[in-house]
Amino acid sequence: MIIGIDVESGEKPFQELVQGVIDSSQSRKNIEFVIVGNSKNIKKSFPKLDSISSIGIVHADEIVYMDEKPVFAVNRKRNCTVNVGIKLLREGKIDAFFSPGNTGATVVSSVINLGLIETIKKPALATFFPRVKDGETLILDVGANPDANVENLWQNAIMGLSYYRLVCNKKEPTVGLLNMGGESEKGSILLKKAFVQLSKLNNFIGNVEGYNVFNGSVDVVVCNGFTGNAILKIAEATKRYFLEIIDELKEKKSSSFFRKLIFSHLEKVIFSNEKLIKKILPRFFGAAPILGIKGLVMVGHGACSKSDLINAIDFASFLFEKDYLNSIIDGIKKS
Amino acid sequence: MIIGIDVESGEKPFQELVQGVIDSSQSRKNIEFVIVGNSKNIKKSFPKLDSISSIGIVHADEIVYMDEKPVFAVNRKRNCTVNVGIKLLREGKIDAFFSPGNTGATVVSSVINLGLIETIKKPALATFFPRVKDGETLILDVGANPDANVENLWQNAIMGLSYYRLVCNKKEPTVGLLNMGGESEKGSILLKKAFVQLSKLNNFIGNVEGYNVFNGSVDVVVCNGFTGNAILKIAEATKRYFLEIIDELKEKKSSSFFRKLIFSHLEKVIFSNEKLIKKILPRFFGAAPILGIKGLVMVGHGACSKSDLINAIDFASFLFEKDYLNSIIDGIKKS
Repeated sequence: MIIGIDVESGEKPFQELVQGVIDSSQSRKNIEFVIVGNSKNIKKSFPKLDSISSIGIVHADEIVYMDEKPVFAVNRKRNCTVNVGIKLLREGKIDAFFSPGNTGATVVSSVINLGLIETIKKPALATFFPRVKDGETLILDVGANPDANVENLWQNAIMGLSYYRLVCNKKEPTVGLLNMGGESEKGSILLKKAFVQLSKLNNFIGNVEGYNVFNGSVDVVVCNGFTGNAILKIAEATKRYFLEIIDELKEKKSSSFFRKLIFSHLEKVIFSNEKLIKKILPRFFGAAPILGIKGLVMVGHGACSKSDLINAIDFASFLFEKDYLNSIIDGIKKS
Repeated sequence: MIIGIDVESGEKPFQELVQGVIDSSQSRKNIEFVIVGNSKNIKKSFPKLDSISSIGIVHADEIVYMDEKPVFAVNRKRNCTVNVGIKLLREGKIDAFFSPGNTGATVVSSVINLGLIETIKKPALATFFPRVKDGETLILDVGANPDANVENLWQNAIMGLSYYRLVCNKKEPTVGLLNMGGESEKGSILLKKAFVQLSKLNNFIGNVEGYNVFNGSVDVVVCNGFTGNAILKIAEATKRYFLEIIDELKEKKSSSFFRKLIFSHLEKVIFSNEKLIKKILPRFFGAAPILGIKGLVMVGHGACSKSDLINAIDFASFLFEKDYLNSIIDGIKKS
């Protein structure tokens, strides 16, 4: 496969992401790479890049900054990295495109340049949350469409189920509607209507809440993009908060030698434990495809590092080999 | 002051909460208590209750269960604990009322029996989140009004600021709008309009996200009740998740004697540290007044324990002594 990488619009300097592509290319012989960015600067920083046959560069003049209005920027900056990359995808010159930049701009450019899958009204972003026991829980939408109506929530459920089947290899995943309580009559008028609509799915288990996300009682959680975005960010902030107070405690002056000893080793133990790291950082952390558009476009965290990029590349390759787009389209057709 | 306690509609047996009232009465000589519940059963379990002069009982026949529809239940079960307690408050027989039961029912009964403060359109529930450094962050609404319009968000900001001033003793707290990014043009049409409206407040600092809640960069966070409820629950679930994986790690069979030693002491160290407990359980955890109604009605967690109840009583007493209701009304008048 050929994957396009926007190395310019993340928060890290392009050098870090180009290095990620180079590192990735050394062990992934079945992947070709197209770096999208300022070709002059990239060649200056990496004079030997030309000698790597599996890596090409496509020039893009501009980037969309994080604080720009997506629709406005994508239309004005015709030759920005996301537009250039997504057009390469449209033309079949690449098979997948990844950008760690302004998510809204990537979504808008994808909808404009690739279009939505037939019958789909809005794109959606899905994120995996870790669980206490095995597996992951998928939440969507986490920000592509802030105001979801009943049809959008229904389509998110359908796409989420297909995506979950594909990634987690589970034949009949369950789906739940995020609500303010488990009872069917909870929430706003829209949520009550969505509950009725989703009840048409055999896989629907009803309303779910925060604790269901972590305990494995549901596989796919459907919600509007505003709330999904808020819970994703508060969960990340809570995790960071917890690590920080343990840190603070560790550094705290203490009269107890034993306590000092415990905390001096605590961090090392936690972070040397592979299982725990897997749990804190769920699989495919840092990259998610934009569901509902006609192509494999993946968005990453703005702070995407070299190793995050390598993960994103592996995930894109995994999805491509699993025939991601046709699986999503098939799921929609059958619904 | 006189405080009414609904001992029946929480998840714990009434005996636990009656015992909480008794324990509280022994050290809080300035408070009188009115227990609301099934008087026959209560007297049977606590035959010596009559001898405590500061505790009275008012009989209520029924309770609203957690899974009942609030409006329906409050109207049908005329003599349920929340209706009885809130009517005592309306008649001036008590100064505050606390219920750990169905939150929706307590909100509905409050609106019906006490009414909303002049100009206020919807009630709101506010919860304090802990911070890494000192202080707390207030989030509202966390569930009283799922679909907030611009006016509701504005009124939540006004009430939240008054409430924060009162509780945290800070003259000029800041207020932010929960959104999908810091930039002013983010989010739905409603959020963009709310941003413009909130900009009229000197205390408004703009859009905020999950991490702002914990880092102290904002004091009062305004959002709709559906999203507020979701982030409250996901934050609690993330905290529990983190404690569980540490627990799991601790119990894990390990070849390292030293690692076993660390984890056998870890929990003890964490939970014996007063500062950390304060941080994990923020002040006034487990009880929040329903802002916007004409009276001091406090809701608690369904799982409210004896010690949670004692905290709730102390918090109600603190609010009453600070002239809570008039402070909120004054704040609204000045806005």
